[in-house]
Amino acid sequence: MSTAAPILLTPGPLTTSARTRQALLVDWGSWDEGFNRLTASLCEQLLAIVNGADTHHCVPLQGSGTFAVEAAIGTLVPRDGKVLVLINGAYGKRLAKICEVLGRPFSTFETAEDEPTTAADVDCLLRADSAITHVALIHCETSTGILNPLADIADVVRRHGKRLIVDAMSSFGALPVDAQQVPFDALIAASGKCLEGVPGMGFVFARKESLAAAAGNSHSLAMDLADQHAYRMKTGQWRFTPPTHVVAALHEALLQYNEEGGLPARHARYAANCRALLDGMAALGLRSFLPAAIQAPVIATFHAPKDPRYQFKAFYERVKAKGFILYPGKLTQVETFRVGCIGHVDPAQMREAVAAVGEALREMEVFDT
Amino acid sequence: MSTAAPILLTPGPLTTSARTRQALLVDWGSWDEGFNRLTASLCEQLLAIVNGADTHHCVPLQGSGTFAVEAAIGTLVPRDGKVLVLINGAYGKRLAKICEVLGRPFSTFETAEDEPTTAADVDCLLRADSAITHVALIHCETSTGILNPLADIADVVRRHGKRLIVDAMSSFGALPVDAQQVPFDALIAASGKCLEGVPGMGFVFARKESLAAAAGNSHSLAMDLADQHAYRMKTGQWRFTPPTHVVAALHEALLQYNEEGGLPARHARYAANCRALLDGMAALGLRSFLPAAIQAPVIATFHAPKDPRYQFKAFYERVKAKGFILYPGKLTQVETFRVGCIGHVDPAQMREAVAAVGEALREMEVFDT
Repeated sequence: MSTAAPILLTPGPLTTSARTRQALLVDWGSWDEGFNRLTASLCEQLLAIVNGADTHHCVPLQGSGTFAVEAAIGTLVPRDGKVLVLINGAYGKRLAKICEVLGRPFSTFETAEDEPTTAADVDCLLRADSAITHVALIHCETSTGILNPLADIADVVRRHGKRLIVDAMSSFGALPVDAQQVPFDALIAASGKCLEGVPGMGFVFARKESLAAAAGNSHSLAMDLADQHAYRMKTGQWRFTPPTHVVAALHEALLQYNEEGGLPARHARYAANCRALLDGMAALGLRSFLPAAIQAPVIATFHAPKDPRYQFKAFYERVKAKGFILYPGKLTQVETFRVGCIGHVDPAQMREAVAAVGEALREMEVFDT
Repeated sequence: MSTAAPILLTPGPLTTSARTRQALLVDWGSWDEGFNRLTASLCEQLLAIVNGADTHHCVPLQGSGTFAVEAAIGTLVPRDGKVLVLINGAYGKRLAKICEVLGRPFSTFETAEDEPTTAADVDCLLRADSAITHVALIHCETSTGILNPLADIADVVRRHGKRLIVDAMSSFGALPVDAQQVPFDALIAASGKCLEGVPGMGFVFARKESLAAAAGNSHSLAMDLADQHAYRMKTGQWRFTPPTHVVAALHEALLQYNEEGGLPARHARYAANCRALLDGMAALGLRSFLPAAIQAPVIATFHAPKDPRYQFKAFYERVKAKGFILYPGKLTQVETFRVGCIGHVDPAQMREAVAAVGEALREMEVFDT
């Protein structure tokens, strides 16, 4: 079934497969046993991806990924805890904002948008402030596509006896994380990212003991993950009306994820997408914002051409007319635009997208890129 | 397109039209102008249903209806406000629970599950406690299907100079409310109820001045309706990733709502569904829990047959095998089950559902209903 829609080269919502979209066509009863089985299977499959079944619960939550991030902080950080928030982009800043609104004590450590936080930084910060109970980190910052060294940081946090909260929104399912190797209290992602479902729900892998100790922490009824989990364990159901169609689509997307070959295959396809994109854009003379070593195969940021005839809006519309939706930049200091490598797309389509970008720039007579 | 799924006679998620489900098949870019127009059109159409464009903003929110209810209380009730919560069922109790978790001072007034709150009750309660700033009411309690006298209560609340928050989750779109006649600060509903969209988002009609004065009230970043609205006014976009497919389906459902004849037509169809259901069930000897005068045409509660051969689970499975999904009772004192009258169903299908119920009871040899 064709949707006649352009291909989304955005970091979620993204392009899904026709089979995933077909799964949206059933109206499920949220109280029905069949739907409960779907939810249970979903959580099992998600836990398997992080090898977390022994140590963590998977708690699904209605809403966007940010809802799940806020829920994780509100549920797992006690009201007298203190969060060290590591920032190198917009999503790190959002973590700090969440702590502020929720009234959780926090401090921040910010590096430049093209500079990963290091384990040495975190070691130093934890030595300096013993009040810190939790460290919160963005695995892959979608504002640029930068990858932070999760495993090294997790190791330092563990050595200090502190707890780690990881926003893995745009990396989960594509970049490997093994809960038995990389200790975390919570790792958060959502349906509409690298798993290639549609947006509308997030999920939190929460360490079992931490979740058990978290009753009463939450600032919110709807976002109380301890309550959400306890209710599902008792009834098999979501606590409040689930986004049934979104759940069914994510379940179908996970079946395809596993058929494709799981995380290694997903990672390989996205890496090939990213390579095709970076190579093609370089050939057009468009410079990538990040060096390759810290570029996650999720989304790439490009410097805007300096030619005054370049305008993002007009450029975006031209590329869209050729079948591809790009993403605006999110940097305040430098003019950029972004192109996602994730979703139900392959390297051949990435090359077509690059060709569309090239044509759009030629039509706009933007030459000196 | 057939989905081969049974018809949902549940109070949401419910059965949607094939056309609404077809709208789920497009992957929209959440940053794209086309999607912004969809959201703007959605909010306009929703405001028109309550005649609220002059006085209220429509603020859409990710998540289930309860998320939107919590967001309305958290955003619109100042931290030193006090909420009088009117209770005659599970959803009224949930309102009180939200106030408790959010730390908003509140008191409750509870009547029996088959007894509407009256305007005289509210008058009396407001006279007795001048600290009350807001009254919170469930329009139609889905736990039984009881209708509370919204217009009369709104009038009393206004006369006392207090503010009204209405959970109209299961009535909005089917029962008339005119914002110019029935004063409220917030009225809350969701996508997957009488508008016949799919679940995954709620929306709040918030009085313009109240929303403007609400900055900084919210206990939550994700649920801050003032921030959510301000961001959309500035950018045309949702603040955090919207459930794009759910939004598109609701938009398509609203087009059909208007083509059908808007609220009067929707109400007439649901009233006919409810009448066909109540008449048919009465002919089977199944007694309705509520008297007709306080029965909303949304969901009906029936006493379970007293015959010991009756078991809800087995009954449910038999009726499901015949193509209809029922809903369990939610009363603690009396054994009941519920049947929804809402969704993309008509009186003929309600009669088929009644026939399925009759057959199931005969197969189970449940006679003395």
